Amino acid sequence: MTDTTVRASARVRDLLAQMTLEEKTAQLVGYWVDQGGEVVAPLADEMVTTTKYADATTHGLGHLTRVYGTRPVDPVERAAWLWGEQRRLQTETRLGIPAIVHEECLTGLAAWQAATYPTPLAWGASFDPDLVAEMAVAIGESMRELGIHQGLAPVLDVIRDPRWGRVDECIGEDPYLVGTIGTAYVRGLQSTGVDATLKHFVGYSGSQSGRNHAPVHAGPRELADVFLPPFEMALRDGGARSVMNSYAEIDGAPVGASPYYLSEVLRGRLGFEGPVVADYFSVAFLHSTHGVAADLGEAAELALRAGIDVELPTLDAFAGPLRDRIRSGALDEGVLDDAVLRVLAQKERLGLLDADFAEPPASVDLDGPRHRELARRLAAESAVLLSNDGTLPAAAPGRIAVLGPNADSSEALMGCYSFVNHVLAHHPGTPAGIEIPTVLDALRAEYPAARIESVRGCDVEGEDAAGIADAVAAASRSDLAIVVVGDRAGLFGRGTVGEGNDVDDLELPGVQRRLVEEVVASGTPVVVLVLSGRPYAIGWALDGAAAPAAVVQSFFPGEEGADALAGIVSGRVTPSGRLPVSLPRSAGAQPFTYLHPRLGGRSDITSADPTPVRPFGFGLTYSTFAYEDLRVATQATTGDGLTATVTVRNTGEAPATDVVQLYGHDVVGTTTRPSAQLLAYQRVPLGPGETAIVEFRVPPARLAYAGRDAVRAVEPGRVDLWVGPSSADREATASVEFTGEAYVIGPDDARLATASVLEGAVVSR
Amino acid sequence: MTDTTVRASARVRDLLAQMTLEEKTAQLVGYWVDQGGEVVAPLADEMVTTTKYADATTHGLGHLTRVYGTRPVDPVERAAWLWGEQRRLQTETRLGIPAIVHEECLTGLAAWQAATYPTPLAWGASFDPDLVAEMAVAIGESMRELGIHQGLAPVLDVIRDPRWGRVDECIGEDPYLVGTIGTAYVRGLQSTGVDATLKHFVGYSGSQSGRNHAPVHAGPRELADVFLPPFEMALRDGGARSVMNSYAEIDGAPVGASPYYLSEVLRGRLGFEGPVVADYFSVAFLHSTHGVAADLGEAAELALRAGIDVELPTLDAFAGPLRDRIRSGALDEGVLDDAVLRVLAQKERLGLLDADFAEPPASVDLDGPRHRELARRLAAESAVLLSNDGTLPAAAPGRIAVLGPNADSSEALMGCYSFVNHVLAHHPGTPAGIEIPTVLDALRAEYPAARIESVRGCDVEGEDAAGIADAVAAASRSDLAIVVVGDRAGLFGRGTVGEGNDVDDLELPGVQRRLVEEVVASGTPVVVLVLSGRPYAIGWALDGAAAPAAVVQSFFPGEEGADALAGIVSGRVTPSGRLPVSLPRSAGAQPFTYLHPRLGGRSDITSADPTPVRPFGFGLTYSTFAYEDLRVATQATTGDGLTATVTVRNTGEAPATDVVQLYGHDVVGTTTRPSAQLLAYQRVPLGPGETAIVEFRVPPARLAYAGRDAVRAVEPGRVDLWVGPSSADREATASVEFTGEAYVIGPDDARLATASVLEGAVVSR
Repeated sequence: MTDTTVRASARVRDLLAQMTLEEKTAQLVGYWVDQGGEVVAPLADEMVTTTKYADATTHGLGHLTRVYGTRPVDPVERAAWLWGEQRRLQTETRLGIPAIVHEECLTGLAAWQAATYPTPLAWGASFDPDLVAEMAVAIGESMRELGIHQGLAPVLDVIRDPRWGRVDECIGEDPYLVGTIGTAYVRGLQSTGVDATLKHFVGYSGSQSGRNHAPVHAGPRELADVFLPPFEMALRDGGARSVMNSYAEIDGAPVGASPYYLSEVLRGRLGFEGPVVADYFSVAFLHSTHGVAADLGEAAELALRAGIDVELPTLDAFAGPLRDRIRSGALDEGVLDDAVLRVLAQKERLGLLDADFAEPPASVDLDGPRHRELARRLAAESAVLLSNDGTLPAAAPGRIAVLGPNADSSEALMGCYSFVNHVLAHHPGTPAGIEIPTVLDALRAEYPAARIESVRGCDVEGEDAAGIADAVAAASRSDLAIVVVGDRAGLFGRGTVGEGNDVDDLELPGVQRRLVEEVVASGTPVVVLVLSGRPYAIGWALDGAAAPAAVVQSFFPGEEGADALAGIVSGRVTPSGRLPVSLPRSAGAQPFTYLHPRLGGRSDITSADPTPVRPFGFGLTYSTFAYEDLRVATQATTGDGLTATVTVRNTGEAPATDVVQLYGHDVVGTTTRPSAQLLAYQRVPLGPGETAIVEFRVPPARLAYAGRDAVRAVEPGRVDLWVGPSSADREATASVEFTGEAYVIGPDDARLATASVLEGAVVSR
Repeated sequence: MTDTTVRASARVRDLLAQMTLEEKTAQLVGYWVDQGGEVVAPLADEMVTTTKYADATTHGLGHLTRVYGTRPVDPVERAAWLWGEQRRLQTETRLGIPAIVHEECLTGLAAWQAATYPTPLAWGASFDPDLVAEMAVAIGESMRELGIHQGLAPVLDVIRDPRWGRVDECIGEDPYLVGTIGTAYVRGLQSTGVDATLKHFVGYSGSQSGRNHAPVHAGPRELADVFLPPFEMALRDGGARSVMNSYAEIDGAPVGASPYYLSEVLRGRLGFEGPVVADYFSVAFLHSTHGVAADLGEAAELALRAGIDVELPTLDAFAGPLRDRIRSGALDEGVLDDAVLRVLAQKERLGLLDADFAEPPASVDLDGPRHRELARRLAAESAVLLSNDGTLPAAAPGRIAVLGPNADSSEALMGCYSFVNHVLAHHPGTPAGIEIPTVLDALRAEYPAARIESVRGCDVEGEDAAGIADAVAAASRSDLAIVVVGDRAGLFGRGTVGEGNDVDDLELPGVQRRLVEEVVASGTPVVVLVLSGRPYAIGWALDGAAAPAAVVQSFFPGEEGADALAGIVSGRVTPSGRLPVSLPRSAGAQPFTYLHPRLGGRSDITSADPTPVRPFGFGLTYSTFAYEDLRVATQATTGDGLTATVTVRNTGEAPATDVVQLYGHDVVGTTTRPSAQLLAYQRVPLGPGETAIVEFRVPPARLAYAGRDAVRAVEPGRVDLWVGPSSADREATASVEFTGEAYVIGPDDARLATASVLEGAVVSR
């Protein structure tokens, strides 16, 4: 055994000392029992392993890959099989070590009959980490019940380009929003004993032009200020126990082969000690797509030396090719030891070394009332009202036309990593296994007395506009038309958004814009509900004479999403979601981020205006809010952080929940600073006329940035602060002058900003 | 005087030792005698200096800014004034040092009555460094005659995004093409005694989304492999004598305030010893747009410490604010000395310290036959035939309809930095001062016997399509329709391309696409001539049933461009230009570069296809060529470079010139490698049936790249080579295996690749 700095018990070290080469590499790979080409369609030929399961497990096995999540299997039956397999590993392999069982769990456990929650972009829109944590607890408990040890979530990639198909898996465009919500998910999931996996470390969402796996053009400051903070928060504050690498290269260096990112930054700077797992096939990709390795053996060596401990989903490179390389003398066996220790330490911590696997669950309920209730609340909190001429809420329309391709579709409510869209799409005819009322179903329930007519009008995709006339006719006969448009999530060419479904155009897919425009032209008041996985360039639907009466943006809201949307239409639910991502002006204005310095936005020096049609943080509701009396100490030293209070008042006639947002701008930096940057936020429910004083505590880590030497520090100087209804509007303002030396952020400074409603400060009118 | 490493004579050091603070700062600024707000419209309020000329020159003056190039002045009269001013500086200032006179000279000397050449993108399309050098000699001689010492050209920014308005000032998308052509320009210009200024150092063309001055997202490897090589070539091989900074930030650090880029890289790594001049107003921009300086004094200090020696165009920061900062004690006067020494050394080298300014020119001819001939040749060599169904050449059509907004426009032939579009646009009614036949003029001359009818059809910009019907009618009456479309170059909102005219859409501006489509629908054969400053997404015009018969792309071809285009239409001129930039698929597919690694192009992992509609290096002619017998030593050591030969044959019926292009791909790198990379090229004229053997000598510098440590080296391993009709087509192939240790590129390795037609190897059929 080589020298190691890995923390591991004597028991684990003893195990390692006994291990043969075969036993070591076996711990460093997964096996995908059910894998079919369909799941990895684009690279199916290269990627389907030919190793038989029995052969793969002779010497033990690191991970079992997606035992529940690859095809529709009865959970109880599959659990019985799994318990048996674990016992078999205990009894039939020399060392008797069970496998870690990992699954996808981004929008809920991705398994048949399991609850499907809103997609992460909706978590971002809720600005509600506590609710996301509750959801993650429920997800983790289901996983725990089924013998699953590790979940491949959350995604902490900060959105940089809405053209990317995986935007629906991301939480938002701001690192702090991503970090707070993502850390809440980690805490919730891990509180149940399931390990979270932070992905994709790091930079993946910066892929050029939003094309999946395309090169990331970024320097060390962008990494430090934008891409890394959510990981730092989830690791240091959330205690996340595993990390998955990004597929992409950064400035020419594939992360999966980069000791800089996976060891120097992740382990050295961020202090991570747990196992790094490979994103699926990413070890082989070092050879087959990146061309930085001549063969799978070299790919394995590169990945291992960079800091990847476990190859997933299966054993393309870390088994045979890596062993051959070691046996040939090109590589010393000791190179495996740190990785093996990390895997064994994880198994020991998970209790796997002492488990008896005696009693598989006799019955499970993966979608019970608690799940449904959480899914419903999160869907309700995450819908964003983008425009409203007063048509909403629509109390009691007599006749309603419910139109559009997403009106009567369950799939339209689901993200790319939902079991329905990720897996069941390959099993036509198989029922979803859970109830997923459509928007049409929910509107019928919401308006039992109304006469509801439903016309599809057109598909999500394709150029067929023949059905639009019928939709227009139905609208003309009605008091209200509700047009439900947007995306269909899928993978690699199936669907309009999701993994591999990147676009060079941000118009609504197909002829859906035309459907909306023609229905609006009917003269009947039109409410548009957008169910999508990315923000689209729908400025035409928001501003100008031909815009519909109201537009609601819902990022795939999950199994109870229709209930939330019907409730918003009727007024039973009051909107409170805010845009976690800018609503883009056009595809050709991308990439764009609200976190731009002055010259990254509209300026006199360019005729190209990238200003979003609705800014980050924007969202209307059925009441109005005003902000005043933003208070902060006018002087502070650089290491202090800041505490600010602001008074928010519900100035309307209805109870509603506001997302109070504190933004800042560092006026003069040694490097350029964003024109606006979210510093803290807090959801605040207020009755009409009520006020609350919200206190924001902003730590130095949130005020720091990478200066000329790329080290994050709080520099002396003025920071302007404001609270307003979005990142683009300053309503209550203040500023603070930081004095003293630059304060360099250290390991103990990663703590979250916090916000709270001051006790006793909610005042009745 | 502080310690300095600046090379300067004793005379210059003595001068410095005598200087007062005022005399020093005076040498570090320019003065813009004729400046009006119109020239810098976007920031006019901030930027117009209030210092009077007399006050500005009391203590001497570093530079006189655009004496000839700011408004239409008679060159001889202005020369007389200038000679007088230089004498006044000699006699009325204490030290008697004349000023450096600098001018723009990108498409020719930007002065009234001076020749206007094709825009740099056309130089790139010619793939003819020798001709570009000849042009630069002619430009330099005109400048020299007028007492101009420094020209603000060439632009060595490598094109990264066609949305950027300044693409027409750039040479191309490949660093080696930019480097070879740019270096040829430098050598030509400087051979006349005029100093070239390399701009914009560095990275400017990487601005996000092609928005002018927007942040550049790039890491050190992209800098080393893409942005820096043209500068390295022009400095080390071309001996360029001045450098101008980029406006933009890179990864948060404005280059104008960056000691890393302007000193560590430029002076340290690239060994540059001459003066660095500020791009216009860029010192002040450190305060006003970048926000990295609290005021102009701090901006001045940052710029000076970073490595900017001279503030241009005038004295916003380096005069009063900088002196105040020094007088206040915040800054030591010694900080000025290196910059002053460099300026004085430049003046000494230019002969300014000994000039007598006795005889201003009595007459000048800035646009004589030699200029016209060079302009005509370069225009002819740079037009790119994109498609042709056999309609071209059109020997003797009886009736020709000449249509489109650019058919009868002189301005349409001119780039953004031409005097016509840069300056005269502000002086309506003033004649161009040179003859600029329009395409219509040239076609009338080309086809004296034809009946030519001309209809504009529509404007370059705007939505007015009322004139299209007349154009269609004219086409219907004709045997051939020639539709001339494209751009109008201008600045900051005037025009469709040029500085500040960035776009988020790559369709032809206005209703020009509709004009072409409707004229094509007339049934008359249609030839489209695109006069533009950027490549547009004109796939619709190249492929498919509704495409015109032929399309010729001409990047602003200058004063003789119309003659070249008419010659191509008639067959008098045979096309030989090649695309120096990819012809884009869409704005939403940007940024894109042909220099992408595998995952930067089309892949199974993304549904977004960025493949250009015509690749880098593409261009048809009136004959065809075939390549065979690509020979190269199959083994070489990493420090060797390579020599390859290929046989090219004119397989058609007409004499024509081919641009033989050698491409390579490094199969396995320690970082990801471009799928194709231009290694060498050579124009080869061949008669029908003739063959030539072309020899390419590729030095290590061209095969090297930035590995994991960002140091450029030739690594061992296989390089695939091919010759084909563009970057996307492999016709003759070979490969070479490099062995040995990685060969790190040193200061002596910056030499150009060379190519030549082997003596005696052109064989008649």
